[in-house]
Amino acid sequence: MARLVMKFGGTSVANIERIRNVARHVKREVDAGYQVAVVVSAMSGKTNELVGWAKEASALHDAREYDAVVASGEQVTSGLLAITLQSLGVDARSWQGWQIPISTDDAHGSARIQEVDGTALMARLDAGEVGVIAGFQGIHLPSGRITTLGRGGSDTSAVAIAAAIGAERCDIYTDVDGVYTTDPRVVPKAKRLDRIAFEEMLEMASLGAKVLQVRSVELAMVHQVRTFVRSSFEDPDAPHMGTVEAAGTLICDEEEIVANQMEAQVVTGIAFAKDEAQVSIRRVEDKPGIAASVFVPLADAHINVDMIVQNVSSDGRYTDITFTVPTADYERAKDVLTKAKAEIGFETVEGATDVTKVSVIGIGMRSHAGVAADAFKALAAKGINIRAITTSEIKISILIDAAYTELAVRTLHSLYGLDS
Amino acid sequence: MARLVMKFGGTSVANIERIRNVARHVKREVDAGYQVAVVVSAMSGKTNELVGWAKEASALHDAREYDAVVASGEQVTSGLLAITLQSLGVDARSWQGWQIPISTDDAHGSARIQEVDGTALMARLDAGEVGVIAGFQGIHLPSGRITTLGRGGSDTSAVAIAAAIGAERCDIYTDVDGVYTTDPRVVPKAKRLDRIAFEEMLEMASLGAKVLQVRSVELAMVHQVRTFVRSSFEDPDAPHMGTVEAAGTLICDEEEIVANQMEAQVVTGIAFAKDEAQVSIRRVEDKPGIAASVFVPLADAHINVDMIVQNVSSDGRYTDITFTVPTADYERAKDVLTKAKAEIGFETVEGATDVTKVSVIGIGMRSHAGVAADAFKALAAKGINIRAITTSEIKISILIDAAYTELAVRTLHSLYGLDS
Repeated sequence: MARLVMKFGGTSVANIERIRNVARHVKREVDAGYQVAVVVSAMSGKTNELVGWAKEASALHDAREYDAVVASGEQVTSGLLAITLQSLGVDARSWQGWQIPISTDDAHGSARIQEVDGTALMARLDAGEVGVIAGFQGIHLPSGRITTLGRGGSDTSAVAIAAAIGAERCDIYTDVDGVYTTDPRVVPKAKRLDRIAFEEMLEMASLGAKVLQVRSVELAMVHQVRTFVRSSFEDPDAPHMGTVEAAGTLICDEEEIVANQMEAQVVTGIAFAKDEAQVSIRRVEDKPGIAASVFVPLADAHINVDMIVQNVSSDGRYTDITFTVPTADYERAKDVLTKAKAEIGFETVEGATDVTKVSVIGIGMRSHAGVAADAFKALAAKGINIRAITTSEIKISILIDAAYTELAVRTLHSLYGLDS
Repeated sequence: MARLVMKFGGTSVANIERIRNVARHVKREVDAGYQVAVVVSAMSGKTNELVGWAKEASALHDAREYDAVVASGEQVTSGLLAITLQSLGVDARSWQGWQIPISTDDAHGSARIQEVDGTALMARLDAGEVGVIAGFQGIHLPSGRITTLGRGGSDTSAVAIAAAIGAERCDIYTDVDGVYTTDPRVVPKAKRLDRIAFEEMLEMASLGAKVLQVRSVELAMVHQVRTFVRSSFEDPDAPHMGTVEAAGTLICDEEEIVANQMEAQVVTGIAFAKDEAQVSIRRVEDKPGIAASVFVPLADAHINVDMIVQNVSSDGRYTDITFTVPTADYERAKDVLTKAKAEIGFETVEGATDVTKVSVIGIGMRSHAGVAADAFKALAAKGINIRAITTSEIKISILIDAAYTELAVRTLHSLYGLDS
């Protein structure tokens, strides 16, 4: 019998009424013949309450104890959902991370899953019981201590469980009904994608589409877990809810997308990030090792660098280097570079915080020439100045003035035929 | 190095400020050279919140899931106290029931402890680390499920841990500062006992002194765990807090009491219970098996019978039987008997709910004649009518009209020299 993982976040289990709604979603899939494992987050607000207490107890708290405290939130929800399922006549039991076990490393507070032993869980699923798994938590087996996976960890739990039990699909129920071609608040004509490739979703997620945590998408890609993003607030018994079509967005392998499309889409979506700042170093001496001399001090200061643009120097002696950093680290990044000025050797460091990175994403662009050129032409026609460009196989990122964000996103959305 | 168990209830850990106060109590004992294991309850109110959710999810909830939900309360407190201890420079870690493990039977919701494996805990105590143990919870090892011990279970956890690690003492911190000779609200001259024997405390606890759960006292008696009841609201660093003298009441073996007293006290305390009702069956045929014919139907109806008085019949044919039941079961008890009237064979069943059972307790009365006679004489002198009497080796229980409760308790308290 096919297995299914269903994951529900904090707002979906915020109170008993909503937990009852979740239970109806689960019952629908059980009635449809699936063996179901459900992964739940803590009731919304509870994790913050627990974190608040831990901080009040001590600003410098032991991450192992922090984990013991905050993991309790998911424990509560798992038990409550199991009780609610039973009240609907669905056989169910709760599983804590240590009971499965979901073994992790000992990086408490942001542990990484090392192995999920699905044996015991599958035996109970085979016996017709729904497994309700506390998300976000695991166990460091050598020490026997409870670990947590960090923010968004329940998505990762769900994907890891799905991989361990060979689930047909991992359904992520959330407060949006899928992944859109871009932010619908910026482009009302944005449309929900039926399918998106793992690689594309990774770019969408890391570029600001907040639907899924990057690490859960990475895990899904590595283990080829078909992950379905859908809304938890719809009527659980609406006719379309039992189908993958028309109910959300399926994140899957490229081949499955190709197989389901008459003609491949070149561009899948337009993402944008407003929280990056541009730093430019002028007249850097163009010699071997110069990039390292710039970026090692920034890495040492734990500043994440995103876009990096270094052009070939025109005179063979000097070049300019431009990159982006989180806006919050902008001043610190300039300080770090100014202090290292003697070692690096440059004229000035300047930059801007009122910039936006707009990205065009699509696996189809691998086999299509001119995608980037089309973008540059369209932006130029609207009088939008391009500050910097970086590209990868499936992505073109363009840095522009923040004031032009909406105009640029709408222009590109139309350009690539994404408007509904 | 000597080991010490310290237990703190829900009101003592109700918020971070109080948890900090608890941590100071612990630090005092660590500084005094003890290896310390602390047992904590859930923050007051939290267990009720969790129970409320479980009930809202389903009135008929699975006790295994109920346990997973409510055990989370103690998990939170154990982590928070460990964090707080660390902030005071005390090395500490939290232990859940399953981590120790505290193994129980599978009577979820009111599980009984079967074994506490103190090996891992003692290794860490030996290494100088304070163990903070989530009370109230355990694990049913064959199934790997979380269990809870029922109301007052944290006291039982503390005593069981103390027995497992061979602790010198188990300190129960509570909202009273010890065990009194009687209820101070009734007798302002009641005084705190320095010591009380296990057997006496069992009688005091089951007779209405609400300081400790009966089962934790039973466990302490069986394993000879010296249990010290003291207040958690005193200044942790007050000079007398480091001593057992003058800080609370030690529940211990009879021999330790004798060794610490110039002259043995005959009576230790006066307990009373107002929530019992009297049932009398008149003119029961006095034949073998008659007691069984009365009390088996009551047991089948799950009615707890306490005092039982059956006198030798005067004419060899008929006798009267009197007993007490919880007031809440009074009408039901009379119904049960009326229905069984033909089989039992009696004339009438009557009774009263406005009665009080007053008990005189003391291990010293084993070796002292006339203790009961003194009580009867003193009560008669005050015009208090005695409805029924039962006695054991260390206890005399007297059933009187409820209106005379305070007068009787005060009279007996003075009679046996207990007034301060």
